[in-house]
Amino acid sequence: MTDTKMILGMAMNDGYGALASSWRAPGVHADNYTDIAANIRFAQAAERGGFSFLFIPDFPAVRADVGRQTIRNILEPMTSLTAISQATSRIGLVATGSTTFQEPFNHARQFKALDVLSHGRAGWNAVTTSDPAVAANYGRTVASRAERYERAHESVQIVQALWGSWAADAWVKDKESGQFVDPAGLQPVNLQGRYVAARGPLAIPPSEQGQPVIFSSGGPSPHLLALAGRYASGFIGEVWTIEQGRAQREMVRRAAQDAGRDPDDIKYFAGLMTTVAPSVREGLDRRIAIAGESFPAQLPHLSAMLGIALGHDQLDRPLSPSQLAEAHASPMDPRSEPALEVARRGWTIREILAHGVIDYHPVTVGPAEVHADHLQRWFEAGAADGFWLNPDVFEDGVDAFVDQVVPLLQQRGVYPTDYPGRTLRQNLGVPEQYGLDPRVVPAANA
Amino acid sequence: MTDTKMILGMAMNDGYGALASSWRAPGVHADNYTDIAANIRFAQAAERGGFSFLFIPDFPAVRADVGRQTIRNILEPMTSLTAISQATSRIGLVATGSTTFQEPFNHARQFKALDVLSHGRAGWNAVTTSDPAVAANYGRTVASRAERYERAHESVQIVQALWGSWAADAWVKDKESGQFVDPAGLQPVNLQGRYVAARGPLAIPPSEQGQPVIFSSGGPSPHLLALAGRYASGFIGEVWTIEQGRAQREMVRRAAQDAGRDPDDIKYFAGLMTTVAPSVREGLDRRIAIAGESFPAQLPHLSAMLGIALGHDQLDRPLSPSQLAEAHASPMDPRSEPALEVARRGWTIREILAHGVIDYHPVTVGPAEVHADHLQRWFEAGAADGFWLNPDVFEDGVDAFVDQVVPLLQQRGVYPTDYPGRTLRQNLGVPEQYGLDPRVVPAANA
Repeated sequence: MTDTKMILGMAMNDGYGALASSWRAPGVHADNYTDIAANIRFAQAAERGGFSFLFIPDFPAVRADVGRQTIRNILEPMTSLTAISQATSRIGLVATGSTTFQEPFNHARQFKALDVLSHGRAGWNAVTTSDPAVAANYGRTVASRAERYERAHESVQIVQALWGSWAADAWVKDKESGQFVDPAGLQPVNLQGRYVAARGPLAIPPSEQGQPVIFSSGGPSPHLLALAGRYASGFIGEVWTIEQGRAQREMVRRAAQDAGRDPDDIKYFAGLMTTVAPSVREGLDRRIAIAGESFPAQLPHLSAMLGIALGHDQLDRPLSPSQLAEAHASPMDPRSEPALEVARRGWTIREILAHGVIDYHPVTVGPAEVHADHLQRWFEAGAADGFWLNPDVFEDGVDAFVDQVVPLLQQRGVYPTDYPGRTLRQNLGVPEQYGLDPRVVPAANA
Repeated sequence: MTDTKMILGMAMNDGYGALASSWRAPGVHADNYTDIAANIRFAQAAERGGFSFLFIPDFPAVRADVGRQTIRNILEPMTSLTAISQATSRIGLVATGSTTFQEPFNHARQFKALDVLSHGRAGWNAVTTSDPAVAANYGRTVASRAERYERAHESVQIVQALWGSWAADAWVKDKESGQFVDPAGLQPVNLQGRYVAARGPLAIPPSEQGQPVIFSSGGPSPHLLALAGRYASGFIGEVWTIEQGRAQREMVRRAAQDAGRDPDDIKYFAGLMTTVAPSVREGLDRRIAIAGESFPAQLPHLSAMLGIALGHDQLDRPLSPSQLAEAHASPMDPRSEPALEVARRGWTIREILAHGVIDYHPVTVGPAEVHADHLQRWFEAGAADGFWLNPDVFEDGVDAFVDQVVPLLQQRGVYPTDYPGRTLRQNLGVPEQYGLDPRVVPAANA
């Protein structure tokens, strides 16, 4: 073990939590979606736990299943994070923004303004957005992956160039001489891509961290790796096993190296959904109370994952010895192996599902040790530089993690006892960068 | 006089004030441009004075004369206003946003999010933006006026339709039944213009004022009037005389009527730059100390306005009797008549210029009565429903106005002693609107 500590981030959505019915949980205010004060409370709790960043995923369209389901998006990422920035002082603020549906000049300006307003805590998760419902909100159809990524490379380069277009020493602001800014330090960038362009400069001086941090997120396709490798300092992953995490983290690091950077310049984050409870039993009961309604519909999926037939009448029984003998993890779904492990421990079908085996991240349920063990095991196995956490219910789930799991991680020496620095870059342990990274050769044909 | 009171707003720029050298004034922090805390102080002072709104003009490009001149833009309008929203509770938040260089879906989402975050205080000054330097930041050239305005009509309609696309009663949020939202209350808008389009819906419920207030600004060209008449509830004017104000206000009101609306639904705001001081003499000295450096360069302009030759050697002398006899207000510049009036009072050339006769708004200099007289005179003459103020130096100019001029206006019964309501619409006295205004027939060929 080196002295490197794990980094924690927290995803925020519509103010309720990671479970489909979190909004109905006891103590949750049903109007949190529009109540910025709620998000501020959660952000402050995460900051109390030394979290390096908040991560705001985004899907700028109404999902087809809305109704009993919530919106599963924050109202709007930039305004929400700006409001949060005014009530916090250390935690990083990472918003998702689409390179396809926003002008690079607007992205450059808003993210750098947030970076300055927050004293060096902003990050941009640059995504290309491939959903037809989103494209339709901009009167378009979905472009080919090649075109979307070509535009993404152009956009990120323009944004970074604009960020660097106010020279670090240009702001003279000498009241005596009357020189406000050195005009020679504000030069156009004059970048003309095939899809987007900007002249610049951008009239925003450096923040305490210079400029915002770029993140990438999603499955590591060659297109995404080429983008992340060149520009990203953080990678938001989706993996279910340590092996997957190690493999993806290695791919991401290699992509950075291939682009001319140091592999340590990009940090890989694995997701985790947490239910903190006095015992595993109580944690499962909590999840059953909140999300149990959705379990029957998951039976066919679980059957497929385990390769056996599961009936509704079996919900409150464990797998029979013959089912256990027959069961095998489906190679089609990386969650199958962890699900089979849970089944082998003798839990009922309902309890297996309450373990979150079909959720979109690994799930940990129970007392602090369960969560700390998972995080430490993954971290020490090299499966992640850190984690982005998705608490089951924000209203009490963040505090529970911060009060119970964080101290344990600190005792074990794997998590810092205080923020390493004041800026997002310092807290991620990624190098200073201002403007484009001179080491990176832009992709000829992204 | 009816019971109607005047409405005040305040423009914010880069954190210094309305004069070119405000940033060098005593007591001004040279780093206010990046210090959101400074803007928050000014906003809170304006709120203490019962101002209905802050108005953020915007020019998203670096001006050619930057250097000794400051940036003359807030860092970024939406993030700055969001930060301010978290430290204020009553004052309205009106940002300029270009219909040409932003997608309607993004505008709709950010402004309505700000409206919800601020509990019904957001406004959008929708402009088409015709400057080549701005267009170049988006890799474009300036489109024709006809095209820009056609896109503006499309954009504002789409934005308003998206604002109304979450039905007022759609948010069930009944934890008992599990119904979060009524999907039937979230319907697509399916608007397809020639330049922009969006499917929707937008997943943001009504704010306390329903949806943001639309503003228009600029010279009242037929194109702008057609836009403002249909959609705007506030018009930010630029006029130098009462006659101009009355004429423009009438044009704006008629445009609303022509579009099928009530003329009282649109409020006309005249600009004013203020220097509050114990006496006119001290006010002029304050302006000379701050901005006097720029006066010599203004001599040719003043000569042209008055139709007489003025030499540098005359800066500290008043117009001679023969010059006064010869002088006549140029019909080419509406500021000439007020300038001539100042000259006739016997002020030196330097003092005439210190009166701000060549500034981009009328200027009032001196004790509270001077400002109150101007505002009351214009208001009672029907030249404005209210004013957007530009204090000479924010650092002390807002407080001076609020502490000295506001009480006088209140004593005179022309300004309210408390906020009329809690939302921007209530404080402007404009009607509720949610979604598109059914009275307005969209322009067939804007």
